[in-house]
Amino acid sequence: MGEFDLIKTYFQTHDDVTDSEHGVVLGVGDDCALLQTAPGQLLAVTTDTMVCGVHFFSDDAPYDLGHKLLAVNLSDLAAMGAAPRWIVLNLALPSVDEVWLAEFAQGLLASAQRFAVRLVGGDTVRGELAFGLTAMGEVPPGMALRRAGARVGDLICVSGVPGEAAAGLAYRQAHRLGKHQPLPEAFAAQALARLQRPEPRVALGLALRGMASSAVDISDGLAQDLGHILAASGGVGHALGACLALADFPSSPLLASLEPSLAWNYQLAGGDDYELLFTLPPGFSHSINALPCDVHVIGRVEAEPGLRVLTPEGSPFVLQRAGHDHFA
Amino acid sequence: MGEFDLIKTYFQTHDDVTDSEHGVVLGVGDDCALLQTAPGQLLAVTTDTMVCGVHFFSDDAPYDLGHKLLAVNLSDLAAMGAAPRWIVLNLALPSVDEVWLAEFAQGLLASAQRFAVRLVGGDTVRGELAFGLTAMGEVPPGMALRRAGARVGDLICVSGVPGEAAAGLAYRQAHRLGKHQPLPEAFAAQALARLQRPEPRVALGLALRGMASSAVDISDGLAQDLGHILAASGGVGHALGACLALADFPSSPLLASLEPSLAWNYQLAGGDDYELLFTLPPGFSHSINALPCDVHVIGRVEAEPGLRVLTPEGSPFVLQRAGHDHFA
Repeated sequence: MGEFDLIKTYFQTHDDVTDSEHGVVLGVGDDCALLQTAPGQLLAVTTDTMVCGVHFFSDDAPYDLGHKLLAVNLSDLAAMGAAPRWIVLNLALPSVDEVWLAEFAQGLLASAQRFAVRLVGGDTVRGELAFGLTAMGEVPPGMALRRAGARVGDLICVSGVPGEAAAGLAYRQAHRLGKHQPLPEAFAAQALARLQRPEPRVALGLALRGMASSAVDISDGLAQDLGHILAASGGVGHALGACLALADFPSSPLLASLEPSLAWNYQLAGGDDYELLFTLPPGFSHSINALPCDVHVIGRVEAEPGLRVLTPEGSPFVLQRAGHDHFA
Repeated sequence: MGEFDLIKTYFQTHDDVTDSEHGVVLGVGDDCALLQTAPGQLLAVTTDTMVCGVHFFSDDAPYDLGHKLLAVNLSDLAAMGAAPRWIVLNLALPSVDEVWLAEFAQGLLASAQRFAVRLVGGDTVRGELAFGLTAMGEVPPGMALRRAGARVGDLICVSGVPGEAAAGLAYRQAHRLGKHQPLPEAFAAQALARLQRPEPRVALGLALRGMASSAVDISDGLAQDLGHILAASGGVGHALGACLALADFPSSPLLASLEPSLAWNYQLAGGDDYELLFTLPPGFSHSINALPCDVHVIGRVEAEPGLRVLTPEGSPFVLQRAGHDHFA
């Protein structure tokens, strides 16, 4: 089966390559897709790659991999305040396993359907198992949530419960290696779901348009991703700083079941959360409860560079590692 | 060095992430790029993946790989009649080799500069050496060159000299394996250049707007790519056919130096040419000389399905292989 047929067979949900409702003039099957962008909107584009053995395990369920590949890209659109519209897929496969492919496609397309995103093209090649996805969305000019824009005194906010995905990864790794398990078995399913089926915060990103002064999604760990905001917002050669209070972080029975310093490390440095981390001018603090998901205020932007983290007892907490770096 | 810095260090040519002239509101360095699309144009999107050991050799010059990765994607935009505008890059590297990366970036960016294309984002990960590129361009509604649209009686045309890239690949493979060399040494440099530094036919694609009834770029071999036009143009469950005359194919001293049936196989089934194959209504035959590159009329679209190829002596020629299939 050729590359042309692979994409058509597994990833084209409609016989008709035109889908005016979703702005698709021409979908899968020609040299390019042709898309109708909305007048007056900016096009937001992001891309992410996942490699077997680096970003996922070879025995991960293909449905989950398809789901996550889409989620990590939609998360970037959400962090920009963009409405997702279209995706193209790069797929490298060691061989054609039809069952695997069908399940991978289901995971990707079921999630795409929920977010009204259309797959409009792709490329399949032979190689070590790896995926790339490029996602396109739209945002009105002046409404995009950038990393630059945070100001001294802004509230630092986060959605959901960061740290649970890191607990899932630690559980998975301990399980594979037969090592001591830090997580009680009762929380294993929840932690794995957070790792393997992240939900991109698309609705929150849209709601934050015109409110948040900056935003980023937490893919590499909260502290490191906050560092991106502080560096981008400080201007050339100068970064802003922040103070975070662990007492104000969202918790959960899962995180509470862990030794506290381990939980704090997961919360601050665990990757794969795909929650939104954003700053709000203090005047918007009354609007937090109206946002479409749980949001916690965990700190403040400060003029003094550097990140200061306080334990619930008020003493400084020092991170064991700053976050995820693919070439560290 | 983290992924953020890799893209910024090697692939960001301007300090300023805004480049209004090229429609870049926000380039590399945030969760998404923000792009200003032209009013009233359709967005054309294509993506291609290149894997080490499948699409290129591990000792290929990194400059050439960067050049070719861009070329194969711009070739798809050209085949659609789209003007190229932006690219995003997915890069999987086993390790960070700064010299290699700098040369790869130079090959990619030098060519991008010539075609006024801006790199606006990307993702670098650890993995087996592989690249993905997604290219975006623009084309006015109704002017795109699709695969569907060829009609019985249309002239089948091709740009440049297809077959020389296949000679380059055969030379390279024979050289690596120490096998008998089918190509005279005098033509080696030319054949390798055709393989490693293809030139996308962007200007031709733009010139064919409103003229060509269908178009495709030759990446998998002329016969197979013509098959895509004939299948797409025939309607549901029915393909058109074609007759090609080898006597009318563009030749060159390089191809003439080969045993004729070998040259014919390269011309018909060699991949990697990145020439445009298109159909013209007969009324446009007088316009061929005004096109921005050499174009040859090599056959006609016929109602009878199937591909008929005639040798210069007028006898039927049977292909040894139909073309390139990544999962064959």
